[in-house]
Amino acid sequence: MPPRPARRPPTVEVLRLGHRAGRDPRLSTHLALAARALGAERMLLHPPDPDLAKRVAAVSARWGGRFEVVGCPDWRAAVRSFDGTSVHLTMYGEPLDRVAPRLRRAKRILAIVGGAKVPSAVYQLADLNVAVGHQPHSEVAALALFLDRVIGLPGPGAWPGARAEIVPMARGKRVRVPGAP
Amino acid sequence: MPPRPARRPPTVEVLRLGHRAGRDPRLSTHLALAARALGAERMLLHPPDPDLAKRVAAVSARWGGRFEVVGCPDWRAAVRSFDGTSVHLTMYGEPLDRVAPRLRRAKRILAIVGGAKVPSAVYQLADLNVAVGHQPHSEVAALALFLDRVIGLPGPGAWPGARAEIVPMARGKRVRVPGAP
Repeated sequence: MPPRPARRPPTVEVLRLGHRAGRDPRLSTHLALAARALGAERMLLHPPDPDLAKRVAAVSARWGGRFEVVGCPDWRAAVRSFDGTSVHLTMYGEPLDRVAPRLRRAKRILAIVGGAKVPSAVYQLADLNVAVGHQPHSEVAALALFLDRVIGLPGPGAWPGARAEIVPMARGKRVRVPGAP
Repeated sequence: MPPRPARRPPTVEVLRLGHRAGRDPRLSTHLALAARALGAERMLLHPPDPDLAKRVAAVSARWGGRFEVVGCPDWRAAVRSFDGTSVHLTMYGEPLDRVAPRLRRAKRILAIVGGAKVPSAVYQLADLNVAVGHQPHSEVAALALFLDRVIGLPGPGAWPGARAEIVPMARGKRVRVPGAP
């Protein structure tokens, strides 16, 4: 009997709620870049912020991959119509390490991350409410650990379509064009 | 022969460089709260920001533990005099998963996190330069994954001295006074 093929990790989309374009562009940018670096497919941003989407698109153009930020005017509809498992990250939820094995068997996951004040409807609309630790901290940290548990931390190497790639080293910085010596 | 006692995880302090009190208080706050929630002992902040330290102290007063933010006027001296292993988190460094086993055997670690522009001297002063993924992302995400690999994600339960504790649940929010029913 042929060996069972290794399971593909789930595809993960991120839904960022409560973005305030004027007040915290940097936090949502960090969230988007962490989502991209840790293997998410895209981030839905509510409310939409075309400037932020453009900045993140520039990162993908240089460093590769197909991650993008997409404006999401109606987040409730996005959660309801999502064809997979929706997971709200909140310090009040079930421990991550208890649900992670189940999540790794999912095909598609929508990871919902709010700011300080998320509408309470999220707790009802999401399939799961999951806590990454049970202390107040940061949605950026929570999303990073969530993606790590579900997808795993990507290793070195150029991403598809990249114009630049890092060569890991003990001291200093080295960036090269993929394929170049 | 008695069983060998389980190894204690290293104590970790965080040194945050390039904080800009006017511009990104929220990012440094997220960094401090992630450091606290994921088991670091304290965060040295350069340049110092007493307001931020006070806000984080209020979190520790409510949720327990002894984490604090300490102003650090001279970061070079802090790194040079650190009595343990100093680790600069940078996307240009060695892969985290390669050095993590060695780090877990350390007694004391200083995790150095910069903002977008870190002084190049950091690369020389730190004992190790370590990459949490090899893509641009967020120092909050990088620190979270670093602490997870070195210390591990804390489970539920009240922290010492806490006035509040979360009771994990599938839907909704529950906070109780530790020891109360």
